[in-house]
Amino acid sequence: MKIGKVIGKVVSTRKEGNVDGLPILVVSYLDETLADTGKSAACIDTVNAGDGDVVLLCASSSARMTSKTTHAATDNTIVGIIDSVSAGSKFIYSKNK
Amino acid sequence: MKIGKVIGKVVSTRKEGNVDGLPILVVSYLDETLADTGKSAACIDTVNAGDGDVVLLCASSSARMTSKTTHAATDNTIVGIIDSVSAGSKFIYSKNK
Amino acid sequence: MKIGKVIGKVVSTRKEGNVDGLPILVVSYLDETLADTGKSAACIDTVNAGDGDVVLLCASSSARMTSKTTHAATDNTIVGIIDSVSAGSKFIYSKNK
Amino acid sequence: MKIGKVIGKVVSTRKEGNVDGLPILVVSYLDETLADTGKSAACIDTVNAGDGDVVLLCASSSARMTSKTTHAATDNTIVGIIDSVSAGSKFIYSKNK
Amino acid sequence: MKIGKVIGKVVSTRKEGNVDGLPILVVSYLDETLADTGKSAACIDTVNAGDGDVVLLCASSSARMTSKTTHAATDNTIVGIIDSVSAGSKFIYSKNK
Repeated sequence: MKIGKVIGKVVSTRKEGNVDGLPILVVSYLDETLADTGKSAACIDTVNAGDGDVVLLCASSSARMTSKTTHAATDNTIVGIIDSVSAGSKFIYSKNK
Repeated sequence: MKIGKVIGKVVSTRKEGNVDGLPILVVSYLDETLADTGKSAACIDTVNAGDGDVVLLCASSSARMTSKTTHAATDNTIVGIIDSVSAGSKFIYSKNK
Repeated sequence: MKIGKVIGKVVSTRKEGNVDGLPILVVSYLDETLADTGKSAACIDTVNAGDGDVVLLCASSSARMTSKTTHAATDNTIVGIIDSVSAGSKFIYSKNK
Repeated sequence: MKIGKVIGKVVSTRKEGNVDGLPILVVSYLDETLADTGKSAACIDTVNAGDGDVVLLCASSSARMTSKTTHAATDNTIVGIIDSVSAGSKFIYSKNK
Repeated sequence: MKIGKVIGKVVSTRKEGNVDGLPILVVSYLDETLADTGKSAACIDTVNAGDGDVVLLCASSSARMTSKTTHAATDNTIVGIIDSVSAGSKFIYSKNK
């Protein structure tokens, strides 16, 4: 899975793939230090993520392994809001700071 | 999912994979600023996309998660026409402008 | 899907994966201008492609979505012989020229 | 599969995908000489891996092929603790040294 | 599929994923000229490949499409020993030379 940051939104009214009602967010990928990698993707959101949230992304067929995306045409799903990322006893990121 | 722009068409008469009647379009990948990334793919179209349209692409096994591609040999499907892409309150792309 | 050009052949007699009788061809990947990208793959052929043919490749689990590869250990299948690639009204490639 | 080294931990309380109770670890990818490649991923752990452990990673839909991840939204699972990596008769890595 | 060369072995006793008894080999990827690409992976072996063998690799969910890996947590399986690779009438590689 990848760690990402929500940076935008995609609107598409003429679409296929059983994703009606699910937001499509633009997410930039972060590395293990939470630095921006310069890569991004459009992702189906299942956790009501907001702008700037650090999120967990699940790609591949496993992007359908949530109750909201079982039959969805999604190859990249936001499956969690990240509270913290740590290395050993040191916090690299904490949502409430 | 990726954001792309339709730039061409592929014709193949001798083919396998249950894709008869579905257009195969050449799509260049765009980044989160809608700039061309220099990469492209051939994609099965399920939404009647036209030349120059900005589209949403779904890869992996989820490329089969539309009513038209359930049994299709497609690893990359155009699943939506994009109306707009925004970052916060700012529009990066709007189809009708 | 990717566009490729057949450039060689792989022979393997001791093998697993239900691919007996299906040719394994070496295919170099082409970009949207039909220029060589310098990347290549070994692909299972389902359309009797010949040396130099420009072909359509399907990867991922969808590589099994042809009648010949349903149970095959293939992650990249040649699913079509390409007749032409065009950009707008201009032909970039035409098989019979 | 990839060889990786556990370097951190992700905590996410608001999440989807049937991964409750499974640790999400940050793993940096190692090459065949066990040198760091500079790439990393967040992975679901099924073997109680600890910080610094050299582990085996399984991606794609096969990331769900363990008893703990059958229905999990994981595209990258830690499926083994590596004891040793050798090239011919020479050990490149041994856990107990 | 990729062409690779067996260069090492991974031993893991604490593991998940129904791969007991199947060797895990380190394979370096070769290009279409059989030159080393500098990339490698750990792969489940189903054909008793030995050190230095040139092999055929199958990734993605199709890595499970052999009788030995049906339920295995493998995203990259050695599915064949390669006898030869040719370009037109010229042999690039032949196992018995």
